[in-house]
Amino acid sequence: MNLVYKGKTKDVYALENGNYLLKFKDEVTGENGVFDPGANTVGLTIEGMGKSGLRLTKFFFEKLKDLDIPTHYINSSIEDATMTVLPAKMFGKGVEVICRYRAVGSFLRRYGLYAKEGQVLDAYVEVTLKDDLRNDPLITNEALEMLGIMTKKEYDVLVELTKRIGNIVKDELAKKGLELYDIKFEFGRVGDDNHIALIDEISGGNMRAYKDGEYIEPLKLEELMMKN
Amino acid sequence: MNLVYKGKTKDVYALENGNYLLKFKDEVTGENGVFDPGANTVGLTIEGMGKSGLRLTKFFFEKLKDLDIPTHYINSSIEDATMTVLPAKMFGKGVEVICRYRAVGSFLRRYGLYAKEGQVLDAYVEVTLKDDLRNDPLITNEALEMLGIMTKKEYDVLVELTKRIGNIVKDELAKKGLELYDIKFEFGRVGDDNHIALIDEISGGNMRAYKDGEYIEPLKLEELMMKN
Repeated sequence: MNLVYKGKTKDVYALENGNYLLKFKDEVTGENGVFDPGANTVGLTIEGMGKSGLRLTKFFFEKLKDLDIPTHYINSSIEDATMTVLPAKMFGKGVEVICRYRAVGSFLRRYGLYAKEGQVLDAYVEVTLKDDLRNDPLITNEALEMLGIMTKKEYDVLVELTKRIGNIVKDELAKKGLELYDIKFEFGRVGDDNHIALIDEISGGNMRAYKDGEYIEPLKLEELMMKN
Repeated sequence: MNLVYKGKTKDVYALENGNYLLKFKDEVTGENGVFDPGANTVGLTIEGMGKSGLRLTKFFFEKLKDLDIPTHYINSSIEDATMTVLPAKMFGKGVEVICRYRAVGSFLRRYGLYAKEGQVLDAYVEVTLKDDLRNDPLITNEALEMLGIMTKKEYDVLVELTKRIGNIVKDELAKKGLELYDIKFEFGRVGDDNHIALIDEISGGNMRAYKDGEYIEPLKLEELMMKN
């Protein structure tokens, strides 16, 4: 088992059979000790964060599997805070796909001249490049195609999958009295047919959720979601 | 004749017949005395800049008229540095449309992880919001529609017109041995049918042009273009 990538919130190990093992860590993205799912720096370390994030990820990835929505998930061990996944090829050097239900975060920073904070956005999808140096810039489908990152056909699949998965997460949160404001996904090309599949995780660290108009921290969110 | 808007490079007066008079000024956008067509501040003042910009604008707007491409242009007076135009309704609080033939400026600042400086882009079109406070953010066609700025149908017309006009400018520059790298346009809704028309100007201040690999300043560009 070889460490192939040391991430901000996860480490990636290559397994001998060609699959990968993701080790969920206790680090959270944010700035100055404040959680921000859009941030590119590790803001704080929270004991038990890795296992907690994996628990919610496992819950959602298994739900997606039941619904025949493609992911890279194979299985997981909460005890070890690890998840075994299929190999996936990245889009370029990595993209992030955001599904927005209310205007907050970077959307508001960009479009505050037109959008009010908290305004309903109805599963609006946008793609940003993973590029810490350039603050994860927004990119259009035309530019994604022109720069050889993904085809227009792949983009359309990506948007459709993002909305479907976003709505599943939103519905699950609603069952617990939580409202999803936005969520960030990663996708990759999986298998010989290079079909588009959800990769990475679906944890509190990828989304912003509110309860009765109040923001819920990732760990608290995961606790509320996993409670019977 | 009432002054209705004091712009960075132009003042706008309302005429009694409902049309508008644009007064071209000697100010140029840029920072710290260096010209930058994408900048939101006035960088320097150059004697004769207004008339020079108007001369090239007149040349292009009259050419577009001959080709039946809709603009807001009625006529102009080089002596007074003024241009008479039809009233136009803005898209939201104003958008800018950029047509790119080579990767420079804000494109490279955003996508430098994938694009090399000067890389050919083949009339790639992107739309940014006019919003000095938020540094004129990039916006997708989906967001333009969602935020009520323009419809998808209008967006498609805008992109098509941008490419046509960009290519006309590119070809005219090429006749003088100049290469167009990028150009920025403004459009508005004109007439009772709200058809999309080119507004503002087409001067050296809106574009980046190179000759033998060397950047050509706006005033020099306009001089080269207007020379027989």
